[in-house]
Amino acid sequence: MSNSPIKSDQSELTHFDASGQAHMVDVSSKAATHRVARASGSITMQPATFALIASGSAKKGDVLGVAKIAAIMAAKRTSDLIPLCHPLAITRVTVDFELVDNSVICTAQVETIGPTGVEMEALTAVQIGLLTIYDMTKAVDRGMVMTNIRVLEKHGGKSGDWVAEIPHTQV
Amino acid sequence: MSNSPIKSDQSELTHFDASGQAHMVDVSSKAATHRVARASGSITMQPATFALIASGSAKKGDVLGVAKIAAIMAAKRTSDLIPLCHPLAITRVTVDFELVDNSVICTAQVETIGPTGVEMEALTAVQIGLLTIYDMTKAVDRGMVMTNIRVLEKHGGKSGDWVAEIPHTQV
Amino acid sequence: MSNSPIKSDQSELTHFDASGQAHMVDVSSKAATHRVARASGSITMQPATFALIASGSAKKGDVLGVAKIAAIMAAKRTSDLIPLCHPLAITRVTVDFELVDNSVICTAQVETIGPTGVEMEALTAVQIGLLTIYDMTKAVDRGMVMTNIRVLEKHGGKSGDWVAEIPHTQV
Amino acid sequence: MSNSPIKSDQSELTHFDASGQAHMVDVSSKAATHRVARASGSITMQPATFALIASGSAKKGDVLGVAKIAAIMAAKRTSDLIPLCHPLAITRVTVDFELVDNSVICTAQVETIGPTGVEMEALTAVQIGLLTIYDMTKAVDRGMVMTNIRVLEKHGGKSGDWVAEIPHTQV
Amino acid sequence: MSNSPIKSDQSELTHFDASGQAHMVDVSSKAATHRVARASGSITMQPATFALIASGSAKKGDVLGVAKIAAIMAAKRTSDLIPLCHPLAITRVTVDFELVDNSVICTAQVETIGPTGVEMEALTAVQIGLLTIYDMTKAVDRGMVMTNIRVLEKHGGKSGDWVAEIPHTQV
Amino acid sequence: MSNSPIKSDQSELTHFDASGQAHMVDVSSKAATHRVARASGSITMQPATFALIASGSAKKGDVLGVAKIAAIMAAKRTSDLIPLCHPLAITRVTVDFELVDNSVICTAQVETIGPTGVEMEALTAVQIGLLTIYDMTKAVDRGMVMTNIRVLEKHGGKSGDWVAEIPHTQV
Repeated sequence: MSNSPIKSDQSELTHFDASGQAHMVDVSSKAATHRVARASGSITMQPATFALIASGSAKKGDVLGVAKIAAIMAAKRTSDLIPLCHPLAITRVTVDFELVDNSVICTAQVETIGPTGVEMEALTAVQIGLLTIYDMTKAVDRGMVMTNIRVLEKHGGKSGDWVAEIPHTQV
Repeated sequence: MSNSPIKSDQSELTHFDASGQAHMVDVSSKAATHRVARASGSITMQPATFALIASGSAKKGDVLGVAKIAAIMAAKRTSDLIPLCHPLAITRVTVDFELVDNSVICTAQVETIGPTGVEMEALTAVQIGLLTIYDMTKAVDRGMVMTNIRVLEKHGGKSGDWVAEIPHTQV
Repeated sequence: MSNSPIKSDQSELTHFDASGQAHMVDVSSKAATHRVARASGSITMQPATFALIASGSAKKGDVLGVAKIAAIMAAKRTSDLIPLCHPLAITRVTVDFELVDNSVICTAQVETIGPTGVEMEALTAVQIGLLTIYDMTKAVDRGMVMTNIRVLEKHGGKSGDWVAEIPHTQV
Repeated sequence: MSNSPIKSDQSELTHFDASGQAHMVDVSSKAATHRVARASGSITMQPATFALIASGSAKKGDVLGVAKIAAIMAAKRTSDLIPLCHPLAITRVTVDFELVDNSVICTAQVETIGPTGVEMEALTAVQIGLLTIYDMTKAVDRGMVMTNIRVLEKHGGKSGDWVAEIPHTQV
Repeated sequence: MSNSPIKSDQSELTHFDASGQAHMVDVSSKAATHRVARASGSITMQPATFALIASGSAKKGDVLGVAKIAAIMAAKRTSDLIPLCHPLAITRVTVDFELVDNSVICTAQVETIGPTGVEMEALTAVQIGLLTIYDMTKAVDRGMVMTNIRVLEKHGGKSGDWVAEIPHTQV
Repeated sequence: MSNSPIKSDQSELTHFDASGQAHMVDVSSKAATHRVARASGSITMQPATFALIASGSAKKGDVLGVAKIAAIMAAKRTSDLIPLCHPLAITRVTVDFELVDNSVICTAQVETIGPTGVEMEALTAVQIGLLTIYDMTKAVDRGMVMTNIRVLEKHGGKSGDWVAEIPHTQV
């Protein structure tokens, strides 16, 4: 399902040193440049639950409004949650939801001016956004499934641009 | 994909009041009973990445050991992350990983003696466990996809036992 | 402005010991009973800002929806912020806003089954709710003022019921 | 009570996008300059409570010393508490208390070298400073009221200097 | 230096399961009883630094007052910091300092009504108390050493009372 | 035990202002330079406990692997724990353990590009690393003692290089 070949100059897991010990990798010599990452994921549910969410902002309660705030706040907590993540001064977060075929698709974009990328921040926003949707509707539908959570693209930094190749069957 | 019908006595989104306003629902009259939830999810990757993780605890670095600690710690942060979640005194967390077909499956079990269930804590542990695997191996494989994240079963409380009906195609 | 006389059996600051040293006071012998606190406060602004917020949930952006989530989440962080506050398992939080005379009045109610009261949790919810309104509208009105933040009433525990006597001029 | 007219070029709520959706606004193109904000607020109490605090650092317990530490620490937590606030590397925090007419006035000054202002950090310090005073003296005076919490002035950044016009009746 | 023999019925590391995997151990069947732990440690410094601290609360600045607040707040963060620690509702924290022979000795006592002990909370309070003293005086004395940090005694729970046997040379 | 004389130009406690009031000192005019700090400390235990840890990564459970992750994560929480510490964007953390004579020695190195040093971050990593070892083995050895926790060296910034003079009796 993942689709770019492992580059030969990246065959090491950088979060471990030569002897296999975990560390927070040195980024002090990396330039503070503008970096952007976009991630997405979806939660699939029953038609009745989907209808409740779709009508939500009107009168039943704004599930997606709450999930958006949770997602944005979670992006700021990423380095607290992921052990070897560097703390970063995030400069922008946007979170959007799309309702398609009994699923809510959550897409998050995060930016920074810093020495490392923000893929983890974008993924964390998506995960907590989806979890909040689950939390707010689980009373009516415990069987919801979160799926297809991935980085869509990243830009900036030494490794430059990267865009996911997504199979047609998943679009 | 979700499969139990919405029960008629649960057709309201309890996280909203009658006028559609979000609130943290009153659990003060609910009994503090023993509650258990189990959730799982997986991350799919390239064969070479899978091989790196599989050999990891030996000498390349213990990806799953780090992810397990992150997952356990995240379960304790659930009510900080999910806006309307009640704080709970968790009494047990276990997190396990299984390596199957270029995927790592993460399963978390959480328990409490309290007035509400621990589904969110189990899901949060799974999400952060998978995110940590992504973080630690993203240098070699940015295209990894997290999928099939769901509650497997819950026990205890007024709503009693619930077990997910998982289609054969997903097992 | 505050109006109940100091009771003679409460003339000590309980957060200090006999020698004036700060401590987190012992509540281990206090019964875990149902406790409720309600607090409120307001933020006063220019008419144009007030109009923006009032029309907000419709199309300009839901200022009060965001502030409500911030307030509820802050109630859960109270013991992290207030040095000598005991951690408590909150069982309910509601936050409401009322729009009156170019002011937004925020009222929060918090409940617990525990050994100490939840006045601080209710006040923290109000403060962060008002601060979030300030944050979201400060681009158009830096001069907003937060005022009249107080406990309205508390119930439960050994000290029993207490209701604020609010002068007519402040209603 | 707020007194500067809304500028025509600031009539939008920047925390929402064109369609009214909340987001953390993009500051990646804003210069990292020296920024300062000063905020204040007060808590009004009974004369006996005021006397206890005034004599506090001597022998009854140092209420204001504890409140000052809580206020400084809270300034560092601002972006954790206010949903759409950017994380900032604060470079200075001072918190002072003045005792006047049965009130304690708390003033906080916060500075940073960064792309956005620190008004929210200064206000958060004031709010938590006042709340800590309430917490430490509530055993003798539940009716205390927090009031007049506002930004006094801000400097730096594209919008430049701003100083509150405070009516004489409030000084 | 540690002095009680390993009891034969405690020869397993309970934080790992039978296969050596870390987990948060199950305490759901343990009774919620009153538990107390006391820990201490010291920081040794130059005579001039010691004199500064000793005179501190008078006019140079209250180093120990700040350290005490940091220690109490840290006790509440223990389960956030120590991966396999259970969250506990602390019911009391006291922190004291003694000035002896160019050292400050920090002693913390923590209590709870809960299913596990509070040794970790008492030790965390001591560690952060000592670290705060270091932070506040490091500008004049970088070579300070923290030493002799240990649990002094614990009471309550199934394992009952335990008191450290401290060699005379360390008293 | 500490050994460098107090420099005459550093005889003030910078965390207090001229009137003895605590504040977070102004670093806005200090250059953001590369700064490094290294700290260490040890925990002494019974021979049987030492043997358990030494054999741990093999089959009994990886005590040091868990402690390393806790130490790295704690370095990122330093400014949340130490009241007057500035928040810093850490660029590197390494934590190592050495097993000698029934003691585990924990050494942490932290780096940043910033306006202040990272001694507190390195010490916090060591303290939480040692505490985690205590937590994971306390079931078999409550009498363990943490000792000799200090800064070993620091580099960068206006005060330049500093290396601890460690007496031979402590090596």
